[in-house]
Amino acid sequence: MPRYRLLLEYDGRPFSGWQTQADAPSVQAALERAASALNGAPVAVIGAGRTDSGVHATGQAAHLDMQKHFAADTIADALNAHLRPAPIAILKAWEVSDAFHARFSARSRRYRYVIVNRRADLALERGLAWRVPGSLDAVAMHSAAQILVGEHDFTTFRDAQCQAASPVKTVDAIDIAREDDRISARFSARSFLHRQVRSFMGSLVEIGRGRRDAAWLGEILAAADRAACGPVAPPSGLYLDRVDYDT
Amino acid sequence: MPRYRLLLEYDGRPFSGWQTQADAPSVQAALERAASALNGAPVAVIGAGRTDSGVHATGQAAHLDMQKHFAADTIADALNAHLRPAPIAILKAWEVSDAFHARFSARSRRYRYVIVNRRADLALERGLAWRVPGSLDAVAMHSAAQILVGEHDFTTFRDAQCQAASPVKTVDAIDIAREDDRISARFSARSFLHRQVRSFMGSLVEIGRGRRDAAWLGEILAAADRAACGPVAPPSGLYLDRVDYDT
Repeated sequence: MPRYRLLLEYDGRPFSGWQTQADAPSVQAALERAASALNGAPVAVIGAGRTDSGVHATGQAAHLDMQKHFAADTIADALNAHLRPAPIAILKAWEVSDAFHARFSARSRRYRYVIVNRRADLALERGLAWRVPGSLDAVAMHSAAQILVGEHDFTTFRDAQCQAASPVKTVDAIDIAREDDRISARFSARSFLHRQVRSFMGSLVEIGRGRRDAAWLGEILAAADRAACGPVAPPSGLYLDRVDYDT
Repeated sequence: MPRYRLLLEYDGRPFSGWQTQADAPSVQAALERAASALNGAPVAVIGAGRTDSGVHATGQAAHLDMQKHFAADTIADALNAHLRPAPIAILKAWEVSDAFHARFSARSRRYRYVIVNRRADLALERGLAWRVPGSLDAVAMHSAAQILVGEHDFTTFRDAQCQAASPVKTVDAIDIAREDDRISARFSARSFLHRQVRSFMGSLVEIGRGRRDAAWLGEILAAADRAACGPVAPPSGLYLDRVDYDT
């Protein structure tokens, strides 16, 4: 059966997240419905990252197996046609070998978290960013965040529901920068724990507000205790931007 | 009566445009409702630019007169509270003299037009950009657009409904640049004719596609004939970014 890799954009607002659930709309279920209609038989769609409810993607990756061979561009066009009007777009499709697995073959993942640092509610980006009123020091946030880079036990920044075998992960890079009233934070790692980026962001915003400092971040990391974590940032600001593969 | 200047962001999707109309929701009517509730009596809100249905703003300007004095920040917060859940945000308010007029005192206006140049439908920016499939040459578009800079009779690029006294306007600058699959076009002028930017963009996209060239753009400008204009670009990609005043 020919296998296809997909590059996906979606607006997380109307979905209960990536993963199929019994009673709520999910990105995975919408893709499986579209692919099954094209295939004429049920198709499973495997994603690289199981984004939470309200989390967006500009570069999610997935794979699926079809019964018949299609040109890769035809798969993309046909799935997009079946997906309408759901806010999910197949940006590109590739035919890949059976060895390719969207989740297990991924070499690194990049997430971006977007804060709009202003007093007024969001009008154009409602649900697409986290509005934080009050002054935020993005330089202090970037500097403190470097404590989180490297291999650590991230129990503090891991949701209680997390199913990963180990809380030890390696964060490759964190870069936080302000441009006018927008603060963008970029995170890269081979893989992330459940709600790790949103847990990082919630604590980093405490530092940005001046309520906490970098030493505190080091302490809560070292505590390896979920109860030590600051507030968790909302899903609206989070984007899965990119998944890299060796192939 | 104290006069206030407002800086506004709005999502144009749910509105029939800036201007109050009998049977359709408008940005102006939403603002006038909010301001009248705060004022306890009817208030007129005058905008710098009458954006069309579906056109967005990140920096529209407006003014209004209140019966009582409020601190400028209070005006912004109170109007934002009354505006909810409409996607309109007062980003800032200033108390200004009676000589200030949002429309007539404006020294220059800046619009931005956003194209996403890709095959797949928009998922995250549906209604917030113009998706154009097929290759577009942004360098050719920028180069040809320089023909439109300066003082010209813009009859060709003016909607039949335009109420301006003269079709002669001076375009100060046009800058068109690509970043990945996004082409942003920025236009500045003291004032614009009705649908001038969308009429420019529609013709510039014909050039970007390679269907027309810069010489053609010069010819249709010189023709000063609305019938010579290319297709008009959709409102979804247009943003009123900034209005400048001498004060």
